[in-house]
Amino acid sequence: MSEHIADLFRHLTAGVYVVGVADGDKRNAFTASSIMQISFSPLLLAISVGPDHESYELLKRGRVFGVSVLRANQQRLADHFGTQSGRTVDKLASIPWQTAITGAPLLLDALAHFDCEVVNDIEAGDHRLVVGRVVDGATVGPDGEPLIYAETGNLDMSASLYPDSFR
Amino acid sequence: MSEHIADLFRHLTAGVYVVGVADGDKRNAFTASSIMQISFSPLLLAISVGPDHESYELLKRGRVFGVSVLRANQQRLADHFGTQSGRTVDKLASIPWQTAITGAPLLLDALAHFDCEVVNDIEAGDHRLVVGRVVDGATVGPDGEPLIYAETGNLDMSASLYPDSFR
Repeated sequence: MSEHIADLFRHLTAGVYVVGVADGDKRNAFTASSIMQISFSPLLLAISVGPDHESYELLKRGRVFGVSVLRANQQRLADHFGTQSGRTVDKLASIPWQTAITGAPLLLDALAHFDCEVVNDIEAGDHRLVVGRVVDGATVGPDGEPLIYAETGNLDMSASLYPDSFR
Repeated sequence: MSEHIADLFRHLTAGVYVVGVADGDKRNAFTASSIMQISFSPLLLAISVGPDHESYELLKRGRVFGVSVLRANQQRLADHFGTQSGRTVDKLASIPWQTAITGAPLLLDALAHFDCEVVNDIEAGDHRLVVGRVVDGATVGPDGEPLIYAETGNLDMSASLYPDSFR
């Protein structure tokens, strides 16, 4: 039955991103799909982050994050940053990246970058809803189609996380 | 220059939705693209809403909303609910809809429905970030491709809302 609810939620269209975090010299990055713009002036993004992930500890302390937008042919990168734990593997060691103005890591190979300072961080069920002010950003190119979460299959093994019913 | 930043933000992939709100017998609906899942247990969605829109008044008082997911060939519906003001036009009068469990209006012709109760509503720049608990939902069908915001062109005339620079 949870598969039924997982299928329903795939109708919410989302991209796939690698979110880099930093606290001084400590850096990590993770794959995320729940990212959206919420304000034009100031430019704000919201992202949903699992509070038990080691990246959230760096995000909470460093209060910066960088978003690298993955293109359709980069599902391998999504797997790389999504399935390994930053506690046991330095996920950034084998992938080219650069440091954003905020200090957050951004992947060199991406469609676009957003560099953000955390302005709010609220409890939201089993995740944290983190709001970032976009202080820098650029399209990286070459242009291409973005990776779409619903087309990755069960990328992050999240289907099993859905409840069996609404109540 | 704002067009440059507008282009950048189109790299955040989003669908297109009609969000119905209700406060007792008063109902309205508006087109939105910033909607995402943020929690599995409980099932939570976040949406970004302009506080000056008449729908936000109903949302604030009624504390329920229904999300109808538009398919690729429904851009006319997105325009219908996006470009008119609920203060001067009853946007729901000419479009078939049903009442969700919460009382929120849902469009009969949609890919999927989510029915939500508001659990949080925070200031987020020039918008409100509203969190809803999903208390019901269903795929409606027939299945099809969703409408993608970046493929609609300047659907909501938002390109002019972007600032000219990041700072």
